[in-house]
Amino acid sequence: MKALFSIVLACFSLIFPLSTFADEAVSPDAVNTLWIVIAGAMVFLMQPGFALLESGMARAKNAVNVMMKNYMDLCVGTLLFWLLGYGLMFGANPSGWLGTDGFAISGGGGLDYTVLFFQMMFAATAATIVSGAMAERTNYFGYLLGVIGITAIIYPVFGSWVWNEGGWLRQLGFIDFAGSTVVHSVGAWCALAGIMLLGPRLGRFGANGQSHAIPGHNLGYVSIGGFLLWFGWFGFNGGSTLLAGTDIGPIILNTHVAGAAGAVGAVFMSVMTRQPALMTNAVNGSIGGLVAITAGCAGMDIPYAVLTGFIGGVVCVLGFILLEKLRYDDVVGAVSVHGFAGVWGTLAAGLFLRGDMFNPDIVMVQVLGIGVAFLWVFTAAFFMYGLIARTVGLRVSPQHEQRGLDITEHGEVGYPEFNRDAAYLSEHVKDLQPIR
Amino acid sequence: MKALFSIVLACFSLIFPLSTFADEAVSPDAVNTLWIVIAGAMVFLMQPGFALLESGMARAKNAVNVMMKNYMDLCVGTLLFWLLGYGLMFGANPSGWLGTDGFAISGGGGLDYTVLFFQMMFAATAATIVSGAMAERTNYFGYLLGVIGITAIIYPVFGSWVWNEGGWLRQLGFIDFAGSTVVHSVGAWCALAGIMLLGPRLGRFGANGQSHAIPGHNLGYVSIGGFLLWFGWFGFNGGSTLLAGTDIGPIILNTHVAGAAGAVGAVFMSVMTRQPALMTNAVNGSIGGLVAITAGCAGMDIPYAVLTGFIGGVVCVLGFILLEKLRYDDVVGAVSVHGFAGVWGTLAAGLFLRGDMFNPDIVMVQVLGIGVAFLWVFTAAFFMYGLIARTVGLRVSPQHEQRGLDITEHGEVGYPEFNRDAAYLSEHVKDLQPIR
Amino acid sequence: MKALFSIVLACFSLIFPLSTFADEAVSPDAVNTLWIVIAGAMVFLMQPGFALLESGMARAKNAVNVMMKNYMDLCVGTLLFWLLGYGLMFGANPSGWLGTDGFAISGGGGLDYTVLFFQMMFAATAATIVSGAMAERTNYFGYLLGVIGITAIIYPVFGSWVWNEGGWLRQLGFIDFAGSTVVHSVGAWCALAGIMLLGPRLGRFGANGQSHAIPGHNLGYVSIGGFLLWFGWFGFNGGSTLLAGTDIGPIILNTHVAGAAGAVGAVFMSVMTRQPALMTNAVNGSIGGLVAITAGCAGMDIPYAVLTGFIGGVVCVLGFILLEKLRYDDVVGAVSVHGFAGVWGTLAAGLFLRGDMFNPDIVMVQVLGIGVAFLWVFTAAFFMYGLIARTVGLRVSPQHEQRGLDITEHGEVGYPEFNRDAAYLSEHVKDLQPIR
Repeated sequence: MKALFSIVLACFSLIFPLSTFADEAVSPDAVNTLWIVIAGAMVFLMQPGFALLESGMARAKNAVNVMMKNYMDLCVGTLLFWLLGYGLMFGANPSGWLGTDGFAISGGGGLDYTVLFFQMMFAATAATIVSGAMAERTNYFGYLLGVIGITAIIYPVFGSWVWNEGGWLRQLGFIDFAGSTVVHSVGAWCALAGIMLLGPRLGRFGANGQSHAIPGHNLGYVSIGGFLLWFGWFGFNGGSTLLAGTDIGPIILNTHVAGAAGAVGAVFMSVMTRQPALMTNAVNGSIGGLVAITAGCAGMDIPYAVLTGFIGGVVCVLGFILLEKLRYDDVVGAVSVHGFAGVWGTLAAGLFLRGDMFNPDIVMVQVLGIGVAFLWVFTAAFFMYGLIARTVGLRVSPQHEQRGLDITEHGEVGYPEFNRDAAYLSEHVKDLQPIR
Repeated sequence: MKALFSIVLACFSLIFPLSTFADEAVSPDAVNTLWIVIAGAMVFLMQPGFALLESGMARAKNAVNVMMKNYMDLCVGTLLFWLLGYGLMFGANPSGWLGTDGFAISGGGGLDYTVLFFQMMFAATAATIVSGAMAERTNYFGYLLGVIGITAIIYPVFGSWVWNEGGWLRQLGFIDFAGSTVVHSVGAWCALAGIMLLGPRLGRFGANGQSHAIPGHNLGYVSIGGFLLWFGWFGFNGGSTLLAGTDIGPIILNTHVAGAAGAVGAVFMSVMTRQPALMTNAVNGSIGGLVAITAGCAGMDIPYAVLTGFIGGVVCVLGFILLEKLRYDDVVGAVSVHGFAGVWGTLAAGLFLRGDMFNPDIVMVQVLGIGVAFLWVFTAAFFMYGLIARTVGLRVSPQHEQRGLDITEHGEVGYPEFNRDAAYLSEHVKDLQPIR
Repeated sequence: MKALFSIVLACFSLIFPLSTFADEAVSPDAVNTLWIVIAGAMVFLMQPGFALLESGMARAKNAVNVMMKNYMDLCVGTLLFWLLGYGLMFGANPSGWLGTDGFAISGGGGLDYTVLFFQMMFAATAATIVSGAMAERTNYFGYLLGVIGITAIIYPVFGSWVWNEGGWLRQLGFIDFAGSTVVHSVGAWCALAGIMLLGPRLGRFGANGQSHAIPGHNLGYVSIGGFLLWFGWFGFNGGSTLLAGTDIGPIILNTHVAGAAGAVGAVFMSVMTRQPALMTNAVNGSIGGLVAITAGCAGMDIPYAVLTGFIGGVVCVLGFILLEKLRYDDVVGAVSVHGFAGVWGTLAAGLFLRGDMFNPDIVMVQVLGIGVAFLWVFTAAFFMYGLIARTVGLRVSPQHEQRGLDITEHGEVGYPEFNRDAAYLSEHVKDLQPIR
């Protein structure tokens, strides 16, 4: 009897701490939610980062157009990724090639909704990489159609191969923790297809092949844009854990030192090539370093992160020279920064993998993933932009390009009081016919 | 005996995990503190968001003045809300009409202090909404007196009816989760009273009733301001849980899709009315979508959030047209964006309430709350600004308005090197008499 | 037998919740990691804050140079602090005068890595304070060498005396919670040594001692920079707990009200000295308030935080007047804002310490720490910048200073379309010889 009583007491006290526990303890999903929400919001700030960087590198007559591309690709991309992209990318994927449910999800909530929010930001990032490369000459509605294609099809299809639990590249062991390839190269190869079809801006290359640099109108914007992108990257890479844990610290640290080393690498290249220390190169170099570390930030030691970032910055500067030689006109250098540095970073994620460095099997899978990404994305984007060019039109008329897309596409002027030509146009903006 | 020993052992191991638990567990209040602090800091970034959006939509000669209104209304509002507002709004409220303690709180700390920090940001947001509408013609110290009135009395009094546990509107079941009415409409109705008393800027409306648009001087600022406001909204709506939990995810997701849909709604209206795709409309539309979802973001499914946001964007554009017809000069469109979209959103929070949609009883309470807000706020603000106009003065002289408030109110010029007229004034700034 | 069965059952159910617990509980280190990472990212945003504030207060011809100093001091400072600074500051410190391990740390990860990330941001902040004071006339590579000296030696050595567990000033009870002295005064005394060696900008002071104000080119940047610094301060002070807990709320609240009171204090001084309400003073005053509260934010009640911030703002304005009288040319007022307000704040942390106010013993230690900081930092920085001046050079040539450092140091122009002179130079930028 006494024993029984003790047992009951034991059971009771066993229940008591349990109920206390229910009161007191924090659910891991609550903390995970916090982290993913905050990280997603940080990634959101990459949008004004891109807007500033890209607008600053364009001329004042296109400042509104660039900003408005960034603003609306976020909005359109968000809605399309909810309707279609998320399901294709993360839905049940029996074949390994495509998700098949989770479209336009609705209802109660929970952690899934938080992840959808986070992934939306990634889709919008992939889409917005394109806008800078194709700046100053692209039809606005043609551009937005491209955003629909990227966020609803091109990006989620490739994403499902790598980040869906059933994805075939994931099954092979392809390492791309936060998307050097899945996000950044995908955006860059879309941009490459776009600028190949668009052709260069008027006056960018002379008749005899000489190249004329067209300086950006506001380099202060470029630097602040770079800082905001860098800030966003802490959420981009850190949030990709999708879990709150102590491993976030080293991921963020790797991210940060790689960004720093990327800028140092780009300035080092400036000095090596006997150029002055260009701020545009330093900013692009830091972004290149961040792109490069994105694939491997969770699996590398710090010195390798520094090396990965440094080489990422060097690759960017070499890429600018290459693209200029090929007479491709990438206004902000997006193909080099997000594409070439993305390729390097995806390789580096295999080469410098902690505990299994320089394993040729791993490196081969990385090469395969990089190649497959290029094949799918470039082909699909080339087809898509070709279709847009033949229907609604991809490039504006030379007259509109000369006047600037702010007036011709949006009927607004970025700086009516600073820019004499713009001010003149602004006074006459009411006389312009509505564009469409 | 053996049994007793086992029981003791059981009890011991029962205690052991408990003590481990005490060591290991994270207190919920610690996590709640984290979230509220971070969310409050995010809301803080709405201040530079407003500063950029409003300054960009004003002329260069008033750029400093607009920024300086935003800067100081945050500072003055913060201190006044600590001294008076918080107690009126959240103090013990036996009557249901006013809080009666918690003024100038001081002492140890705890979660209350975190909530005070968060609520300060809300008060400053309500106050700063006014600054943009009344831009380019308001006496600086008159404006600051208005901020004192809003953050110390107008905003907390209405707030106590809805967000104080004893508030009479709350008792009736009025739904305004994060403040479509409590914050945004309150700010907008103050602004409406202000611009009615101020009258339009010189040259805004012609003698025969025709309207002359006055373009903003820096549309890049407008877009970056929109992005920062959007970012801040994640803290505004998400932080209003005041608790860390998984419900934050759907709240943030609803917030985000409504912002996106608001911009799409505004651009859709641009196309419908045969205008070009104005960036200013897109940005204001997204803010309208965010204002609209603020009341109902915690109680709606995603498709309804999209709908709420989309209509919010449409309402903004219709509101601009209406206010222009009424010849009210709202420089940034704040009355439409925060007021009209706030009304719509507060209605939508009742109409689309998950599990009890289109319940006429709920909708009637929403209508009551919307009406009461307008009556109290508009009347009090009209009286307050009238009093300011008759004492320190509300509107600057026409000479000062023409020269620009940067020189006349602050003795500083925003861009002395870019703006010829401003540069001329800048050289002569030392000759100006100190204004007061 | 029955009893035994019950005991087994009890034990079983005892194990069951335990294993659930292991699944369910959140580790404190995970939450601490979250907070430190987020706080560190917020501090990161102080970098664009400084870039905007400093660039806006400089002339357009130096806008790129100022931004580029901020960008690269972050990058160089990050890598140097990892290589050397962190070990000197936080390594095992048996003597109390210097850390001796933890250089270039690498390997697995954990909370240490998160703390390193956070501390990197502090080192970069100390370094970047210098850039604004020395703006518009400093050799770029000379400046970067100074950054190496600050982040690798000057800052971590003093930091080890206060923030290292074995530091001798810490042993004496010196209070500097988040670095009014350790970070801000250290930056300011480096800046003071720099501007004393550099001398004033051309034209800043006339032959007869009269002073010519040189207005900043973009005051909008100044205000947005101030907002970003303020935002970053929530991470700066809040994150210095290095632990997630409810005490973060009061720390953040103290920080915020001190910033608000600092701006009010500076505007109050403007009115007292019959000046107009200068926005540059308001912004600097708020930063002065934030600097002042940094030392004592964890140990003061709110009214004292308000007082500390208010006096911090007043001290800034008085400091500007003093430095101008001494004919020191501090472009952004950094010595006053970070140095003088830092001294005041470190005193205030002792004077207003909760539970032990106005204790002369405590105040004496504070005075000692303030004095030691000045002696070490000013001497070391004076020696360092003197060495740089005699080797690579500290000041650019008068010709380069007149043309602007954007062209001469970086071959880029900040605003080629807005600034007529800059546009002219931009056309000829290809003719310039590479600078080095």
